[in-house]
Amino acid sequence: MDTTTLKVLVERAEKSKIGQVDFNNLSFGNVFTDHMLVCDYRNGVWETPKVMPYQPISLEPSAKIFHYGQSIFEGMKAYKDADGATWLFRPLENQKRLNISAHRMAIPELPEEYFMEGLKALLRTDEQWIPTSEGSSLYIRPFMLASGTGFHASPANEFKFIIACAPSGSYFSGKVKVLIEEKYSRSANGGVGYAKAGGNYAGQFYPTQLANEKGYQQVIWTDDNNHEYIEEAGAMNIFIRINDTLITGPTSDRILDGITRKSILEIAKDEGIPVEVRKITVSEVVEASKNGTLKEMFGAGTAAVVSPISSFGYRDADYDLPELENSYASRLKKRITDIQYNKAEDKFGWRYKV
Amino acid sequence: MDTTTLKVLVERAEKSKIGQVDFNNLSFGNVFTDHMLVCDYRNGVWETPKVMPYQPISLEPSAKIFHYGQSIFEGMKAYKDADGATWLFRPLENQKRLNISAHRMAIPELPEEYFMEGLKALLRTDEQWIPTSEGSSLYIRPFMLASGTGFHASPANEFKFIIACAPSGSYFSGKVKVLIEEKYSRSANGGVGYAKAGGNYAGQFYPTQLANEKGYQQVIWTDDNNHEYIEEAGAMNIFIRINDTLITGPTSDRILDGITRKSILEIAKDEGIPVEVRKITVSEVVEASKNGTLKEMFGAGTAAVVSPISSFGYRDADYDLPELENSYASRLKKRITDIQYNKAEDKFGWRYKV
Repeated sequence: MDTTTLKVLVERAEKSKIGQVDFNNLSFGNVFTDHMLVCDYRNGVWETPKVMPYQPISLEPSAKIFHYGQSIFEGMKAYKDADGATWLFRPLENQKRLNISAHRMAIPELPEEYFMEGLKALLRTDEQWIPTSEGSSLYIRPFMLASGTGFHASPANEFKFIIACAPSGSYFSGKVKVLIEEKYSRSANGGVGYAKAGGNYAGQFYPTQLANEKGYQQVIWTDDNNHEYIEEAGAMNIFIRINDTLITGPTSDRILDGITRKSILEIAKDEGIPVEVRKITVSEVVEASKNGTLKEMFGAGTAAVVSPISSFGYRDADYDLPELENSYASRLKKRITDIQYNKAEDKFGWRYKV
Repeated sequence: MDTTTLKVLVERAEKSKIGQVDFNNLSFGNVFTDHMLVCDYRNGVWETPKVMPYQPISLEPSAKIFHYGQSIFEGMKAYKDADGATWLFRPLENQKRLNISAHRMAIPELPEEYFMEGLKALLRTDEQWIPTSEGSSLYIRPFMLASGTGFHASPANEFKFIIACAPSGSYFSGKVKVLIEEKYSRSANGGVGYAKAGGNYAGQFYPTQLANEKGYQQVIWTDDNNHEYIEEAGAMNIFIRINDTLITGPTSDRILDGITRKSILEIAKDEGIPVEVRKITVSEVVEASKNGTLKEMFGAGTAAVVSPISSFGYRDADYDLPELENSYASRLKKRITDIQYNKAEDKFGWRYKV
């Protein structure tokens, strides 16, 4: 389709809910804006995207999303700068990853213009919902689900692409205690761990509940074979600082290619921080903690940005991380959020004006 | 709750769709009965189950089923005997497994009476939909989905338990060619492969599509570590006959505890067939094919019952299975379906009259 011909339809809500929202006390992802974008896939094509009032979705009981988990999502944020302009952060990376996930989950890929034009039309319609309070942003959730029907365990022939938005505060409050998991696993070799597939997340809920009961907020996932290598932190990528070197695992078919992860790698290099992308073993981290060379651990992802870890549990022992002045976590978080909120130069060309 | 107090509500459809259905040409899982059972979980309790007209389900865009794949299901069938009586096959095994899946996926367990009384009320209401034509049955799909809302990656606080039914013919038509998979995997050690979690199935679609393009109907899954052990056949358990011994892999956290699988094991023992439940390697099967001791391979599951495999592909070679008179597959399928349709003695006590 010619990019010039795509018109996004807009049906405005009769009444805004925005007056009911306390923008100074936002939690994460619980309050939704007045509109959503919906684009249907039928008869082999994506139909015209439409901004419409935020409303329930009606699906047949045999829709394959309910039975076979054929669904994927992305996480993004929109930011307001001091001049009231709206910014996105590397949105094309989300668009590309959505299609990588779609491919693995046998969902038709969405053309870039449907994603970008639909997203921009939605953000313009709900512009007033983008928070301006410190640390807040508009969390954006693009997702695709199998609306096609039938109990045969095979891909659906109809899908919905939807974008919904929630003005949000912090994902975590305060520092995070994590537990290195040795029984449960997040993903298989040759599986769907690298895709943002819905089922990857529900599978983490029960092990995370068990960790919560022991006083930890998140699980550190290890490989499913020997639980020898550190892979992800809950739904985030993980970074580990030993002495002055910042280490994160390589992406693989088990590890998500996080956009915050790769942005942090670039910023760290730009800051002159020694960076290693390599496999890291649990025993190396435990040893580094014991000998005092383990300086920092933090999670990185769109929702939580950079989330410092205060201690980790492993085999019935807890290992505390030191409290650092001018930590990598705080430096990197400031650099990335200053770019996101248009408070600093964007030498990487990551900001995208809506 | 006292079992005597559970009353299932029934709201009948104004008009039946049954006249539109050609019961002599049923496909699998594409035509749905007039009613469905719905039971909501809210405020920490399962509410009263209700039989209601089959109709679309309305969910908030932020319902966690759409984002985090928090859903599970079961597969069952109802059969009519020559006297018009309705039978189920080991329904309590499905009820127990539903709760095993629920536990792993952080979904509240459903009390047995909600499942059984709800199911029976639905089957009585839609009794005329149970096919009587040879090889047909009413496929029953109990499922649970996270209806609670929010973008936080944590379990929902509201769920729906639904049962929908589809009068169905065969799942496969004819014999099945399978491909032994060496790149993609179905499940991880410590993962959710043993649960009937929705996401386990969507993850199979793409590798199965690739196999389809090469002329195979199904994938034989192997372990994700070295692809050394044979684990499942598509969405079925797998049985392999070498000489006169029937072999299937042990259940594990990667392999579903199939009800057809364990029924076949019991019937085979009763028939005097030598049975081994043990790990089986790909190389053993290839070697047995080469030396002529590989007699049969078949999948087993509720939907397809017993599904004979005509050949398997492995590393660019195809291995044909011999055509046998009085195969184990046909003997075991006849024994199990005769019990299911009340055509033979049920010495195991598996039949359940509705």
